[in-house]
Amino acid sequence: MFGDFKINERRPTYLQLKEYLKRQILNGILQSGERLPSTRELATILQLGRNTVILAYQDLEEEGFIYTVRGQGSFVAEVTVKQGETTSLSWPAMLTPQAVSASQLDIEKTELKWERGMLSFKSIAPDGGLFETEDFKKAFLDRFTLEGEKLLNYGYAKGYKPLLEYLINYLKNKGVDPEGKDLIITNGFTEGLNLVLAGICQPGDGIVTENPTHNTALKIMKLRKLKIFGIRMEEEGLNLKQLAETLSTQAVKAGFLIPSYHNPTGLVMSPEKRIEVLKLFSRYQVPIIEDGFNEELRYSGSHVAPLLALSGKGNNVVYIGSFSKILFPGLRIGWVMGDADLIAALESIKRSMNIHTTFLDQALLYEYLQNGSFEKYLRRARNLYRQRHQAAVRLASELIPHQRIWGEGGLHIFVELAEGINARQVLAECYRRGVLFMPGDLFYTDGGGKNTFRLGIARVTEEQMARGFALIGQVISEFEEVKDA
Amino acid sequence: MFGDFKINERRPTYLQLKEYLKRQILNGILQSGERLPSTRELATILQLGRNTVILAYQDLEEEGFIYTVRGQGSFVAEVTVKQGETTSLSWPAMLTPQAVSASQLDIEKTELKWERGMLSFKSIAPDGGLFETEDFKKAFLDRFTLEGEKLLNYGYAKGYKPLLEYLINYLKNKGVDPEGKDLIITNGFTEGLNLVLAGICQPGDGIVTENPTHNTALKIMKLRKLKIFGIRMEEEGLNLKQLAETLSTQAVKAGFLIPSYHNPTGLVMSPEKRIEVLKLFSRYQVPIIEDGFNEELRYSGSHVAPLLALSGKGNNVVYIGSFSKILFPGLRIGWVMGDADLIAALESIKRSMNIHTTFLDQALLYEYLQNGSFEKYLRRARNLYRQRHQAAVRLASELIPHQRIWGEGGLHIFVELAEGINARQVLAECYRRGVLFMPGDLFYTDGGGKNTFRLGIARVTEEQMARGFALIGQVISEFEEVKDA
Repeated sequence: MFGDFKINERRPTYLQLKEYLKRQILNGILQSGERLPSTRELATILQLGRNTVILAYQDLEEEGFIYTVRGQGSFVAEVTVKQGETTSLSWPAMLTPQAVSASQLDIEKTELKWERGMLSFKSIAPDGGLFETEDFKKAFLDRFTLEGEKLLNYGYAKGYKPLLEYLINYLKNKGVDPEGKDLIITNGFTEGLNLVLAGICQPGDGIVTENPTHNTALKIMKLRKLKIFGIRMEEEGLNLKQLAETLSTQAVKAGFLIPSYHNPTGLVMSPEKRIEVLKLFSRYQVPIIEDGFNEELRYSGSHVAPLLALSGKGNNVVYIGSFSKILFPGLRIGWVMGDADLIAALESIKRSMNIHTTFLDQALLYEYLQNGSFEKYLRRARNLYRQRHQAAVRLASELIPHQRIWGEGGLHIFVELAEGINARQVLAECYRRGVLFMPGDLFYTDGGGKNTFRLGIARVTEEQMARGFALIGQVISEFEEVKDA
Repeated sequence: MFGDFKINERRPTYLQLKEYLKRQILNGILQSGERLPSTRELATILQLGRNTVILAYQDLEEEGFIYTVRGQGSFVAEVTVKQGETTSLSWPAMLTPQAVSASQLDIEKTELKWERGMLSFKSIAPDGGLFETEDFKKAFLDRFTLEGEKLLNYGYAKGYKPLLEYLINYLKNKGVDPEGKDLIITNGFTEGLNLVLAGICQPGDGIVTENPTHNTALKIMKLRKLKIFGIRMEEEGLNLKQLAETLSTQAVKAGFLIPSYHNPTGLVMSPEKRIEVLKLFSRYQVPIIEDGFNEELRYSGSHVAPLLALSGKGNNVVYIGSFSKILFPGLRIGWVMGDADLIAALESIKRSMNIHTTFLDQALLYEYLQNGSFEKYLRRARNLYRQRHQAAVRLASELIPHQRIWGEGGLHIFVELAEGINARQVLAECYRRGVLFMPGDLFYTDGGGKNTFRLGIARVTEEQMARGFALIGQVISEFEEVKDA
């Protein structure tokens, strides 16, 4: 007895002893009514300080696992752990169709996985090596010292007030008129889009998107059973004629657009086109959901205002923002800005979903933004990513036989192969040779894009790109030879 | 010009200057093509260091707001901010029925609000004064130093691995058999319940709950359009006869139960009743969703195992846990443990909703739990809350004319008045006199409980309880007089 008690360095010993004894009781090894060794005896047996044993016994008594009889010692209490028969339900059969679809559309489950030693261009997550953790630590210490207790208790669904104010100001600096609008903090872009869609779209409703578009957005729309109308992305961006036709002939509840550094093509919608797009949606009184994705990652050219700014005093644009794509995705903080009536409804939906987003993270992000650390980081990140992006475009153009290399910014480029080359077959072969990327069809609304793929470049060096792209190019050449033969 | 530039102490000056100039440009005060003062001139005008101005100009150029012509200076770039016509949509008319219901069922919007100077018994949030912020800071520094960079980048939908392992172990220490089960981290209890219901319940499905039950759970079920079958809570707890009848005659998809420190009655289901309840649900092959709410806040009596433990090797219980109710609600971390097939589906649903829960908070919570800070806090909190709870029961019994005072633990008590006394009318009058509490009908599945209310006691002193309860008692006496007259 007690021979199997082992100590782990990182946890207080008395807790380990308490938990060990609990399990002995719950497993019936120490039985109810049984007398425990005295604290002195047990300390000797286990070679622990007597105080350790005393603390463990105190806690066990406090939690109702043992009781003390004065002058006689400590005894195991009556603890019910007995179960009736074992009940086995078939959970897969109980799942809702929505739950089944969520698994089927979950690319973490369905797509090829990175394995140790592989070179991956799959992710567009930022390079953690750029994170200035010392600045973040400072932000924590400054902010937590100021109001730690408050941050650890309940907050508000709309968000942490200084962050709300900061973000409204931040959007004013992009030319947004905040009059009549409001802002809510969300658990990243993904929750933001879910909230907006829950607010205004029901199953069967129509939604207009770019084709291709952000695959997670597409997944969310499919899970919400929306009818998706994809508008072709061409060399000059969105095909306005198709957009006008769709808006005039279809019942459309909303548009979802990524005007800057579009995912996956990397295109930036020109100011003139932005104005045209706004006019078209206005004519049909259809609101636009604008994904502000990677807007900070401009590498060249003039500032282009978001649609939310260009809509001026209008209330027809809902903007979803997030710093996650370039700064701290682990924190999961995004926001939605739009008409105040809409935001008020989203606040109630958010409260019903998860009460509010963590106040600690909101406060730390606020401090980090407010004290200038973000701008400092952004300058470094932008420079590095600009270099990687330029190198990626150059290397891909050289090494990968292509019809077109897309991409004006962001953390990825998009490759369009010659018609008839299947990117999934190319991927399967590259994977065998240790290189991974994202097949392009995932981004298409209509099953198209079979000859496309996306290359994420945030976490790879130029040398890795050269090596990986050369391999991809080699595999494609082999496919082309077969095709031509 | 530049006369309205003002400096705020807490933000780097160059950023403030940059943002000021941006707005001048976006508002058309500085027009495209216009020459800016030289950095030297502007430094003199604004009495700033020249470096501050240089940095601001550099950033503005980087972001495409200005451009430099060598030998001539800096000029405002072509920045499109012009909008077309102003479009005004009617958002309230666009909201989905679900969004409208979320607002209507949002007690933050519909119930009386605390105002400065009022004495509130509405909340059951923990007392922030008990939080050991120094221990939390230590947890941050220890954990962040170890793996800050990792914590700030993307994590996994299931959760932060050390926390997952800790929690599985924690539940093993309550007698749970983890074989065939799995665990997922959620944004608090609220998201946990939403995930489980999204996983197995569709609109129109039946669900069995205690009556009364947790009002947020009730709201979530209503928003998901479930058919709610409430089972009476009596002096001895759940009415088993009604439960058996309901399960045998109604199509029921799941049960939702709060066996320990039930919200709002505070009852603890006895071990014998737990076994009976498990048997009944097993007979009809209906899974139980167990809310582990406040399970740590036992103030006396033997340890009672959760249903999840009592179900042994069975897979018919899904447990939703959270430390939010006693520890750090601001962090919003909860979890769901249940059958591995179910958890795999919830993982995909979670990923479609918000990718994952903040890794930073998960890691900090893990460190705080692992290093023993939690147990230390729990001991202090339990002692204090035990005293408050005992005082609350004693004072309410003395001062509030009642039919019954319910409550064996937790951070609240539940008061049942004589039949015919309307607790909302009592509340309206108490509110006028500066005292606030939670009307009980919010917790009922069937419109009942009009003569009940809940008193949260976590954040009030004994003196405040004496004063507040006396006032409530006084108001009730006045109503009784009217009724008797």
